[in-house]
Amino acid sequence: MSDMTSTADAPRSPGRPRSTRADEAIVEATLDLLAEGSTVEALSIEAIAARAGVGKATIYRRWPGKEALLLDALGRLKGAPPRTGGRSVRDDLVLLVGAVGQHVDPRVRKIMPCLVPEVSRSSAHRQAYEAIIEPRRQAMREVLLRAVDSGELRADLDVEVAMALLTAPMLTQRMLHWHPDRDERILPERIVDAVLDGLRPR
Amino acid sequence: MSDMTSTADAPRSPGRPRSTRADEAIVEATLDLLAEGSTVEALSIEAIAARAGVGKATIYRRWPGKEALLLDALGRLKGAPPRTGGRSVRDDLVLLVGAVGQHVDPRVRKIMPCLVPEVSRSSAHRQAYEAIIEPRRQAMREVLLRAVDSGELRADLDVEVAMALLTAPMLTQRMLHWHPDRDERILPERIVDAVLDGLRPR
Repeated sequence: MSDMTSTADAPRSPGRPRSTRADEAIVEATLDLLAEGSTVEALSIEAIAARAGVGKATIYRRWPGKEALLLDALGRLKGAPPRTGGRSVRDDLVLLVGAVGQHVDPRVRKIMPCLVPEVSRSSAHRQAYEAIIEPRRQAMREVLLRAVDSGELRADLDVEVAMALLTAPMLTQRMLHWHPDRDERILPERIVDAVLDGLRPR
Repeated sequence: MSDMTSTADAPRSPGRPRSTRADEAIVEATLDLLAEGSTVEALSIEAIAARAGVGKATIYRRWPGKEALLLDALGRLKGAPPRTGGRSVRDDLVLLVGAVGQHVDPRVRKIMPCLVPEVSRSSAHRQAYEAIIEPRRQAMREVLLRAVDSGELRADLDVEVAMALLTAPMLTQRMLHWHPDRDERILPERIVDAVLDGLRPR
């Protein structure tokens, strides 16, 4: 990839578009190294540059440092949340709950479990984790708040708890997924209906 | 600890109690090795015997093999679930939800995250994981079913989903625990009330 290096390292004249090929290679190298087990601390600009086939200067021209690059790279992992139709809060939530822990990029599966134990210890890890999950959290928050406005959900809704109830069972189930067949599995519909209706008789 | 070995290895006469000191040392050695990062596969009877200061024969006299010893050792990690008062389903659930992820033995914290990624791949890991959590799951199941009988909870209760809603948010929060102060934290009371009442207006 030495041709990419030379292109990317050439001084940028005003108006010349960023080398998206080099950007892409740098982001991919970062995610590959994390997916192969590198910790956030151990990850170095040197290693990323070597893997991407670019010079360190190319990276520093685009990102101020490792943390900024990391957040940018991780933020691209999940892709956009699914688009909700807005017909009913139940339909929208089933769609969003079904997407919890579903990873567009298979590297998420390798990167997330390594980030999680570090989240409580380091703010860099916490930021990285939030960069991955926040777009989807925001989509769910909006569905819930719209349904409060429309009267479908209670006015005193505890939004943070509601999001935890909807997402955590899918996350823990995906983490442990051992269920032999579909009947035993806790499907999004079952979660959403139980959360909406509650356990007490109505 | 050679005196323990010789005592434990002596042939047992009928009626003579098991050497609980050797049992204890073997169980502790197993848990220590796991907490230090040994995988279930890598753990060997040799290593456990060496760590406990007993002969391999002492272990085989008490457990048919590694898996049986492992399940026994892991089953002791959590201790008994908290005793529920049975006054109201809410009180009982707040107590049990508060105990989710609270570990009597600090080694659980090191052992569980290593077991989890293996659970879906190996039935030995799955059994080990279930040996740890099942006593507490059973306590919660009983509280829920009692409340269905008494009419406090709906007759068509989806018990598995209810347990997931009650426990998973605590588990994921404990795993990630980064909340700076008590106000932001999702406390057992908030979870139980949201699950019991549901998100729709009543």
